[in-house]
This record gives sequence, structure tokens and C-alpha cells, in this order.
Amino acid sequence: MVKKDYSDVINKIDMIAAKIYNDFQKTEIPSIDLPTRTKANIKFDEKLNVWKYGSNTTQRNAKSLDGAYMLLRTMYMVDFIKEMIKVNKSSTLREMYYISEGWDLAKFSSQNESNLLAEDLEVITGCMREDFKLRPEEDGARVIGNLTIEEITRNNTKKKIHCQDDVGDAGYSIPYNVEPEKISFKDADADFVLAIETGGMFDRLVENRFDTTHRAILVHIKGQPARSTRRFIKRLSSEKKLPVVVFTDCDPWSYRIFASIAYGAIKTAHISEYLATPSSVFLGVTPSDIQNYDLPTDTLSKEDINALKSELSDPRFRDSFWKQEIKLQLKLGKKSEQQALAKYGLDYVTDTYLPEKLAELGVTKK
Amino acid sequence: MVKKDYSDVINKIDMIAAKIYNDFQKTEIPSIDLPTRTKANIKFDEKLNVWKYGSNTTQRNAKSLDGAYMLLRTMYMVDFIKEMIKVNKSSTLREMYYISEGWDLAKFSSQNESNLLAEDLEVITGCMREDFKLRPEEDGARVIGNLTIEEITRNNTKKKIHCQDDVGDAGYSIPYNVEPEKISFKDADADFVLAIETGGMFDRLVENRFDTTHRAILVHIKGQPARSTRRFIKRLSSEKKLPVVVFTDCDPWSYRIFASIAYGAIKTAHISEYLATPSSVFLGVTPSDIQNYDLPTDTLSKEDINALKSELSDPRFRDSFWKQEIKLQLKLGKKSEQQALAKYGLDYVTDTYLPEKLAELGVTKK
Repeated sequence: MVKKDYSDVINKIDMIAAKIYNDFQKTEIPSIDLPTRTKANIKFDEKLNVWKYGSNTTQRNAKSLDGAYMLLRTMYMVDFIKEMIKVNKSSTLREMYYISEGWDLAKFSSQNESNLLAEDLEVITGCMREDFKLRPEEDGARVIGNLTIEEITRNNTKKKIHCQDDVGDAGYSIPYNVEPEKISFKDADADFVLAIETGGMFDRLVENRFDTTHRAILVHIKGQPARSTRRFIKRLSSEKKLPVVVFTDCDPWSYRIFASIAYGAIKTAHISEYLATPSSVFLGVTPSDIQNYDLPTDTLSKEDINALKSELSDPRFRDSFWKQEIKLQLKLGKKSEQQALAKYGLDYVTDTYLPEKLAELGVTKK
Repeated sequence: MVKKDYSDVINKIDMIAAKIYNDFQKTEIPSIDLPTRTKANIKFDEKLNVWKYGSNTTQRNAKSLDGAYMLLRTMYMVDFIKEMIKVNKSSTLREMYYISEGWDLAKFSSQNESNLLAEDLEVITGCMREDFKLRPEEDGARVIGNLTIEEITRNNTKKKIHCQDDVGDAGYSIPYNVEPEKISFKDADADFVLAIETGGMFDRLVENRFDTTHRAILVHIKGQPARSTRRFIKRLSSEKKLPVVVFTDCDPWSYRIFASIAYGAIKTAHISEYLATPSSVFLGVTPSDIQNYDLPTDTLSKEDINALKSELSDPRFRDSFWKQEIKLQLKLGKKSEQQALAKYGLDYVTDTYLPEKLAELGVTKK
């Protein structure tokens, strides 16, 4: 029987209730201050090398009816979270929205409202959603490699799962909660983590046994990676001291996938240091690869071009590598896909492209 | 070492090449006949209780340049499939599209073209895409329950996986190929299969241990279910003699999910008897449930209303149950979601709603 100690979480959310209570006692209008969550209040933290919120704050107070409702909802939500912790349950954000049907005047009027309040609570307390037992709708990113995970299952038993020997070819499914109370990394006999954008490419590398031949832990990130996937990669990298290499399509949206893994995303800037892996490197497909490997391409759309231009002024892409590559792509007017490497056959990516690029990056020896 | 015998598949695709060859020998214009794949040529097979193609046929021939290219592509594709079978590889449809870069004049001009040709080959030969070693981009639907699966892994070893004891809480990931040469069902000590639309609800049932308390095999169908998920359910149902119960949101799109599981989809009508489970039943959420359980709702959109009206004339929804429910929903003007049941708390769905509905359907005793 393993159980996380939630007393710290409970203390922190109780402090919110105490603040409101004290305001009432002092006959002041109840209020809560929290950092402003807008693009203007996002700063690149040079020390942590991730995005964080700046010093602007917003006040939620009961001066208006809407504000009073918001504080009332906060109290109900604090109560709901404490109840879940007590009975060892968790809830999706969507379930919480419906649960509020029973909260009388505090009922949420839209799911957006309940999602925002969950983020507010994270920002105020410095806890993570997982600490509140709130979980997302979906996940199911997959892992294959010489890695043993110990998962504490719903029956509170520890289960060791080797991500090659104990799983089918579809791999180990990353659960929605990857915090230490749920999973821990045991042996990881590998040289690096390879995060892969598309399922088709993940399955290609699995079929070609790239995890074995190149001592890689393969993680399918399923497009824009979910929070639990980013946290999984972050923990794996820092606890097992493994370099993280990101392999995506060659277009501006894929570069943002890389940036969210490496530097964090604006929506989750308050917990960037938990989710981002600043040491991760981008392997490709790069615009240079389009030229060097003579890859099949599509023409950049207007949206692609605008996204690339906006990346040129994004501090996450300010180093010379990205500046050069983005400028080259704008000049070429082309984009490409991971699977375009199949032009040279199904084994080209594992026999030629990846080994060459990994050696270039210094991750493996050629 | 286990290996499927592909000689039948090879014979069938060789016959396509033989037909073209014979046409040339007889100095006739090469051609191939195949069923027309349009809505007008879809018939409800009363015996199999699934959708099938009717008797209209279309001819692909070399009278035009485009037609000649299409036949040339077919020959290249037949060759590519035979090569994959030989070296025991598989390929995504997207990879095949890029592979055709090396086919000179036979290069596909769009992925749509290569996907269509893959379907053509299925229709002509009566084989399935899996027989051709072609696979989809994504899958990852998940299973939890008292079921033991034997999977033949990429290393050609048999691996037994119990879908409760040998997996994490995210469950067993259904691989893209679920044919007998890849997976087989061993013990299944359960009373029924519950196919669940959303990941949030799947995780709720897992957390509440519904698979154990109600002897259910839970399958997350991930919205509109992938081919391998439908095939998985079909095989599980027929080989283990288990009833299949479908649990979705309450809107016209979810009814289509049910129909694709129960009766087949238009795109895959040539293999409906392999993919569809005509005995499966719809549990809910039904429009009657909105009333009976007083569920939170949203207003039907114009698209919802049109979809419901078109379902009224769809032979798949012609029985009195569906007619009544769809008419009721149009009258109510409302739709609802699985997770709306959380209005009554996180356990209501497993303690009250599902047991009541399953007893009503006669799947379990109350």
C-alpha cells in the first residue's frame, strides 16, 4: 500500500479559504491576487531556460457579482478537491464541470470557466493539477525501449513493466498521471530518448528495432504533446541523465512542438520547470535536410509563412541555428514530413538518416 | 518462430498482374473491373446484417493516359506488397505514397490516390489491407479487463498479456494489426464487452474498477473507432461469445459510431463482415436518458438536427427503438454527454446508471 502525502497540497488550498475567511472577519471585500496569464506577462527565464510568468498580477474580488461568484466557485472547488484526496479518487476537468451542477449559484456556466479556475488554483498554490486529482480527457502516448517503469496501479500495488519485454508492439501507454506517486523509473539502459511526432514514424522505428540497434527509448509524442508526455520526458531525462532528441515533420507547427518540449508553453508557464526539458535538441526534419536529402515537399501555405515569420521574433527560436533554418525555409518556400524519408525505402530512416543526424548532433558516434 | 502463410494473398494479387498480362497477349486494352464504391451502390445485406457493395461495377482501363497510369501504379504496388511480404515488413499508407517517388511515371500525385488504390486492391482481391502489410498512421485504442491476449511481437515471439495484471492503468494498447497472425484471445473471464467513446469515461470506469465489479472488458474506442478497434471488438465478440454494449455521448455523431461498430461503414463496406458486430447493442446515453436521469444538456445545432433527420432515413436506424429516440431528441432539441452523469457524483455512472441500463438490456441481472 503506497500513498502520497497530500497534506502539503491540502495546506496550500486551505490557505486560499483562510484568506477569504480573514477578509470577511476584517469586513474587507474578499479577494485573491494571482499572476496575469497573458502573453504580455510571459518572460523567458534565463536561469531556468524556460518561459515563466512575470510580475504583473490580477485581482479576483467580490466587488462585482461575477467576481463574487468566482470566489464562491473557488471555495466549492477547494472542497471538491479535498474530498477527492480523502477518498483517493480523481476527476476529469469535464466531470468537475458537471459536478458543479450541484453547486447551486456556484455552478460553472461553461467548461472554459472551470478549466481556467483549475489553472488559477495551480498558479496561486504552486501545486500541479495532478496534485488536485484533476486529469485531462485523453492521453495514450506510447513508449518502447530498454526501460523499466514501476507503476503504482489503481489497486495500490507496485507493478514493474519493462517497455520492451512486458508490452505488445504498440508499447507502454503513458498514464495521465506520471508524478512520482504514480510512476518511477527503474533501470534505463539506453543512450538517449527519441521523441517522435507521428505514430507512423514511431511504428516504423519499432518495426525496424531502432530502440535495440541504437539503444534508444522511443516516445511517441502524438503531435502537440500532452502535459503528461512532456512531464514524462522531463523526468526521464533528468532522473536518468539521458539526452532528449526531438524528431518531427519539417514545418513551423512542428518547431512549436519542439519548443513546448524544450522551453515550455505559454498556457503552462507557471510550471515550465516541471514540464520543459531545456537540454533537448532538435534533430529534424530541418529545412537543410530538404536540400541535403532531396526530400519530397509541399508548398508553404500562407499560414505556414506567417507562423515561420512569427517564430523569427520568438525568443525560443532566437539562436543562430533556428534563425538560419527558418530563413532557409522561407527562401525555399517548402515544407516536408518525417515519412518523406520513405522516398529512399522503408529502412532509410533507421539505416542512414537517423544515424547520420545523431552523429552530427554528437548524441551517438557514427 | 511464427509466420503467417501469405501464399493466398500473393496468388490473389498475382492474378491482377496476370489479367493485365493476358489482355496484352490478346492485344486487348488492359482493364480491371471492380465494384463501384459510391453511396448509391451500398446495400444493406439482410442476411449478414451489415452494409455491402451492390452489383454496379466500374472499369479501370488503359483507354486514357490517366487510366493507363493507374494500371501502371497498380503493378508497382503489387510488386511493393510482394516485396514487403518477402522481407516481413509493413508500411503506412503515407510511406507507400512517398515510396512511389521511385516509381517514375507511376508516382502518385496525391496521398488520396494511393489510399484509393489500396482500397481498390482490397475490393478486387477480397483481401484486407493488413494482408498487404499496409497499416494506418495511428491507433492506440486501449483495453482493460479480465482478458488474456497472446501477441506475436516484432521478434516473432509469443507474448501473453493479461489486460489487468500485466498492464498499467492506461491499459493494453491495441496494435494496428489485430489479425490472427498477430494476436489471439486466450482466456476471457467476463460477461460482456463495453465499448466506450471517450477517454475520460474509460478512465472513470477503470478508476472505479467497473471491469472487476461488473465482469466487463472495457474498450476505449477513441471517438470514431479505427479499423483495428472494430476488428478487435468483432473478433472478441465472436470468438469469445461475448455481447458487445456500446456507451457513447447522446448526439447524432455518436449514433454513427455505434452504427459503424454494429453494421459497418460505407468506406469499408467490402469487408463489413470482418469489421462489424451486428449483435452489439446501444446502451446510451439515449435521449430518453436525458429525461429519465435529468441530465445537463446543450442545445442541438443546425448540423446536429440535419444529421438526426438524415439518420431517420438511414436503414441502419430503421428499427422502432432508434426511430423513437431520434424523434424524441428532435422534439427535446437537446443533446448530452457521457460525462454529464457526473452531475450526481463521480460514482453515479458505475453504481447506478450502468447497472440499471445493463439490466434493462438484459446483459446483466440487476
